[in-house]
Order: sequence, then structure tokens, then C-alpha cells
Amino acid sequence: MPAGCIFCEIAAGERTANVVLDEPDVLAFLDHRPLFPGHTLVVPRVHVDTLLDLDRGAIGPFFETVQRVTAAVTTALDAQGTFVALNNVVSQSVPHLHVHVVPRRRKDGLRGFFWPRTKYADDAEAAGVAARIRSILGDGMV
Amino acid sequence: MPAGCIFCEIAAGERTANVVLDEPDVLAFLDHRPLFPGHTLVVPRVHVDTLLDLDRGAIGPFFETVQRVTAAVTTALDAQGTFVALNNVVSQSVPHLHVHVVPRRRKDGLRGFFWPRTKYADDAEAAGVAARIRSILGDGMV
Repeated sequence: MPAGCIFCEIAAGERTANVVLDEPDVLAFLDHRPLFPGHTLVVPRVHVDTLLDLDRGAIGPFFETVQRVTAAVTTALDAQGTFVALNNVVSQSVPHLHVHVVPRRRKDGLRGFFWPRTKYADDAEAAGVAARIRSILGDGMV
Repeated sequence: MPAGCIFCEIAAGERTANVVLDEPDVLAFLDHRPLFPGHTLVVPRVHVDTLLDLDRGAIGPFFETVQRVTAAVTTALDAQGTFVALNNVVSQSVPHLHVHVVPRRRKDGLRGFFWPRTKYADDAEAAGVAARIRSILGDGMV
């Protein structure tokens, strides 16, 4: 447990939070500055910085819990949809993996997908980018 | 396969895309209007509308692949971080589950976490919301 990790402190019971799920490997609690009421964070109890640091074998149980929390948030807040997201490193306010589960309603004031999108200059640029990603996956590097 | 589902069409090879990963249960390809070059979508081959519709048993293999794609996008685009997100129903442009994997760099112009946040009126409001979510999880409804 890294010194000063507030999510480890919540997991250890050393810091209060509005916990919604408390299981051996996963904890979920309300974000204290929600995008909307019911905005929940799902975290692994073990400290890992990002999604890339979570053991392959822990991925399934963790995201099965994310699915359950998403269903519960949808029902509890009578939501029409949800936004489920995580930031790795950039924009990650707390360097302990956490998945945001945010209840949504139509016309709730959040823009669809937040940022102006861009375009590839041409098909060749896109194909080149795809080839780079594909080669890394194909090489078994990840 | 629902008529007109463009992601099913890509999975069936009936529509072109810059595919980066092609496996029996999961496909990943470039978003054609990326937030940044390398913005990739990961989809299950089977048609499901949202995360809530994905079979529990498919969650692990699907998100293990999301983790691998996230690692590959990070490396291929020399990114400092990533944004990994999905929209269920609201803001979901294509009603076939898809996870966005977006490479990020510091000062890339995207705001940290996109929306003005709110606050609970008081501790009691937050505790009440948490209790509603917790009771649904505890009842085994989800």
C-alpha cells in the first residue's frame, strides 16, 4: 500500500466513504464529487496504478463486478444509460485503478462524446496506424 | 445480427475497417472519426447492445482483450496514457457494445474529466444514494 493512496485508505477502512459494495477483491463507493448523484468508483483492493498493471487473471472478476455495479446504479438511480470509463495515467486523479460508473439520462447536459473529433488525413495514414497497433498485438508483445 | 448494425457488418467482413485485432470472439478496429489517431474500438463479435447484455462468462475474455489493446495502443502511438470508456444507451452512437481505447498525452487539449462536477447537498443525501445502490447489490438483483 503506497503511502498516501486514498483509495487504499478507503479499502483499509482508514478513510470514510459511501461504500456500495465491499467484497474480498473489489470495493465500490460513491465519488464524493459526482458528475451526477450515484456516480460510483469501482476499485480493486490490491493497489495497482492502472488497467495495464492489473493481473490478467483478475480482469474477469473485476469487470464482472463493474457490470453488476453498472446494473445496480442504473436501477437505483432510475437511469436511462450509463457512462463507464477509466483514465490511465493522463487525467487520472488518483493513481489507483478506478472505473467510473456514471448514471446518465437523455438531455442531461453532458455532450455525447465530449471532444471535437478529428479525421485521418487519408486512408493511408489510418492504415499505417492500424498496422502499427496490429503488429504489436501480433508479435505477442502485449 | 440486427439489420443495419455496422459493427456486425464489420465483424462479418461486409464493411471495411482498419482492423487491429481479429479473434474468434473479439474484434478491434480504428474509429474512423478518432479523438486522436490510434483511437480504437473493441467489440464482441456477438451482437449485444450494452455492457449489461454481455454474458457474465464473456466479460473476462472481452476485457482481457481490452487490456491487451490498451497496451498495444499505448506502445504503438507512444502515448503517455489512455482513456478507456464505453457508453451504455445514452450517448451510444452504435447500439453494439464497444469500448473506446484512446491514446492520451499530457496537455493534449482534452480536459481532465470533462464535465463540471457537482456535490451532494449533504452527507445524508450521499448516504441515501449509496444505500439504494447497496441494497440492490445486496439483494442479488444484479
